[in-house]
Amino acid sequence: MPRLNENFLKLEKNYLFINIAKKINAFKAENPDADIIRMGIGDVTLPIAPVVIEAMKKGCDEMGVKETFKGYEDSGAGYDFLKNAVSEYYKKLGADISPNEIRINDGAKSDCGNIVDIFGNDNIILVTDPAYPVYVDSNLMNGRKIIYADSNEENGFAAMPDYSVHADIIYLCSPNNPTGSVYTKSQLETWIDYAKKNNAVIIYDSAYEAFITDKDIPRSIFCIDGAKETCIEMCSLSKTAGFTGMRCGYTVIPDALKVKASDETEVSVSQIWGRRQGSKFNGVSYPVQCAAAAVFTDEGQKQIRENIAYYQENARIISDTMTKLGVKFTGGINSPYIWFKCPNNMGSWEFFDLMLKEIAVVGTPGAGFGKNGEGWFRLTAFGDRDRTIEAMQRFEKLVESI
Amino acid sequence: MPRLNENFLKLEKNYLFINIAKKINAFKAENPDADIIRMGIGDVTLPIAPVVIEAMKKGCDEMGVKETFKGYEDSGAGYDFLKNAVSEYYKKLGADISPNEIRINDGAKSDCGNIVDIFGNDNIILVTDPAYPVYVDSNLMNGRKIIYADSNEENGFAAMPDYSVHADIIYLCSPNNPTGSVYTKSQLETWIDYAKKNNAVIIYDSAYEAFITDKDIPRSIFCIDGAKETCIEMCSLSKTAGFTGMRCGYTVIPDALKVKASDETEVSVSQIWGRRQGSKFNGVSYPVQCAAAAVFTDEGQKQIRENIAYYQENARIISDTMTKLGVKFTGGINSPYIWFKCPNNMGSWEFFDLMLKEIAVVGTPGAGFGKNGEGWFRLTAFGDRDRTIEAMQRFEKLVESI
Repeated sequence: MPRLNENFLKLEKNYLFINIAKKINAFKAENPDADIIRMGIGDVTLPIAPVVIEAMKKGCDEMGVKETFKGYEDSGAGYDFLKNAVSEYYKKLGADISPNEIRINDGAKSDCGNIVDIFGNDNIILVTDPAYPVYVDSNLMNGRKIIYADSNEENGFAAMPDYSVHADIIYLCSPNNPTGSVYTKSQLETWIDYAKKNNAVIIYDSAYEAFITDKDIPRSIFCIDGAKETCIEMCSLSKTAGFTGMRCGYTVIPDALKVKASDETEVSVSQIWGRRQGSKFNGVSYPVQCAAAAVFTDEGQKQIRENIAYYQENARIISDTMTKLGVKFTGGINSPYIWFKCPNNMGSWEFFDLMLKEIAVVGTPGAGFGKNGEGWFRLTAFGDRDRTIEAMQRFEKLVESI
Repeated sequence: MPRLNENFLKLEKNYLFINIAKKINAFKAENPDADIIRMGIGDVTLPIAPVVIEAMKKGCDEMGVKETFKGYEDSGAGYDFLKNAVSEYYKKLGADISPNEIRINDGAKSDCGNIVDIFGNDNIILVTDPAYPVYVDSNLMNGRKIIYADSNEENGFAAMPDYSVHADIIYLCSPNNPTGSVYTKSQLETWIDYAKKNNAVIIYDSAYEAFITDKDIPRSIFCIDGAKETCIEMCSLSKTAGFTGMRCGYTVIPDALKVKASDETEVSVSQIWGRRQGSKFNGVSYPVQCAAAAVFTDEGQKQIRENIAYYQENARIISDTMTKLGVKFTGGINSPYIWFKCPNNMGSWEFFDLMLKEIAVVGTPGAGFGKNGEGWFRLTAFGDRDRTIEAMQRFEKLVESI
């Protein structure tokens, strides 16, 4: 039989959230009547906004009529109507991104996982720890060397570069998953300076940008000078507009961004990524793109802001509980995640098991995101209001009892 | 800056169909009034069947209501309702495939391009020539050695294995893109025998299976004994139900299929591919899956069969023209493609340019699919009836004039 890509054996056997699902299923099998509250996987619960549904249904109708039917997209990088809408959105965030620098995808995860295909395996990867597991896994699959910048209690879980260490490709995520921390403008300037000194590329995950309320916190890396020569940004409508089951996101690759061939010639990252996608991707479903474009209309923005405000209030409720209990945490503001220190110096998985068993509340063990996550825990604000309140009442009792 | 994956420099600069689009755009710029008929890229033109549109709109409505809203799929491999429908469909084709051996995707191209990620780079790849460019490109991107089995006029463009040559991973496509040829049951048995003797895996592309009319031609590799130990099958709704702009397909990985680690242990292909997808894919849009499921209902099958019959009649019209003109061809029966020998021993691209310039008809140069495609040309039956007839009238005049 064919030989395996052995790098897969270096990975955890399952993706983190599949392991968590297995634990929950085992608990449910033993406790069929348990009233489980899920605050683990960062999935939204509010339905898609009405204006978005209407736009998608209109797109469906167009697909059913010969004159308006859409087959393959020419480019596979998204329809102009959507790329233009994203470009206009970036203007409002204070970033000048042309539509042709935007590629529409089926959610940030795919591009985030696949982008590494275009880079040589001898590049050194820098990941902040803890981090979204895809950054690490997608590079381990190609056997790349990964180094870590520590995010920890001391630096508010916002790792900064060590100039004595070289990296070629850097993953940053702000607002951060899992820690809820955000980088300030000046911190991002430092990262770009480090990237320039190392001739490195930053892959910037801005999936949670819509949760930023502080006007001084950049909502795109392209709000920072010099980012166009050093950065790729990946964003998604999953958390912004509840698209976790709809599947649409976008990647920004500036025209100015280059990658180096062994003969020292410089090649456009956008061109090489386009070549990769030309052979391995055929674009996003047309009705989904119609739905996505509606998110960026005035009415769409108004409707999704109501949903985001609902989640932000959940985040406040969770944060207030932590404050009241004297539990240390980051996030909650500018972020849908609350990242807290497990009581009594418990381990992450130990606390996961305790919460599941004692109060039937599911969260995500910080250890699943890297070594600095050990002893920490992530809760999400994406649940129902009533269930969030109920979970926090149970949580209070649990923490007071141990 | 980071170092490039140098394998990309071995690829043609653009994906074939992007080069063709460029030629057409240049022609249009010079001849703005030209009445171009497109029979090149294999894109469909009939709208999506009504029952499918209704199902998708119902799926949209569910996304707009809290009680029926769907976020992330647990597995990312497709909802049970769709996997069950595909499994039932396979039963009708004469193949016993359980739902858990089926993974739903956003079209065959993504899985077909990405599947190679799980195999080591030291595997030898066997591709029939000519072939769909993704088989070659996706392996060149990883630097794998590719060998070819010749499909040519002598063997009716249905390459058979050379037992004196070893391969680890074999790509087969039947009905074939681009040649329209189909493998018989006995030919597929030979390929599986060859695969077993070489401990190889066959990646079987059945994207055009719905066009098979001959009852003796298998519509799935899993109609053949021994396929479950040797084959992965990839299919798509793009050509079956006009989903080129909707984006949904499915990959079958039997539980019995294994891949070998360097310590000679055997690992489940399905498990490793699931691990890959867990980190790099988040499933298909829920309303798209609703649409796809409707294709497999009785009413859905009835409606899509009408569209397929329409295209099959186009194929007959094209075939009849070739027969009348004494032009050699394969396909047209059991296939939406007609693969013909360029008149006067012209080269493929030479004939492409001639057709575009003289009769404004666009096809696909055979040379774009591999060396054995040189001197041959592909036309598709996916166009309008009137335009297909018009194109064949123009074609007749052109061939008679040269």
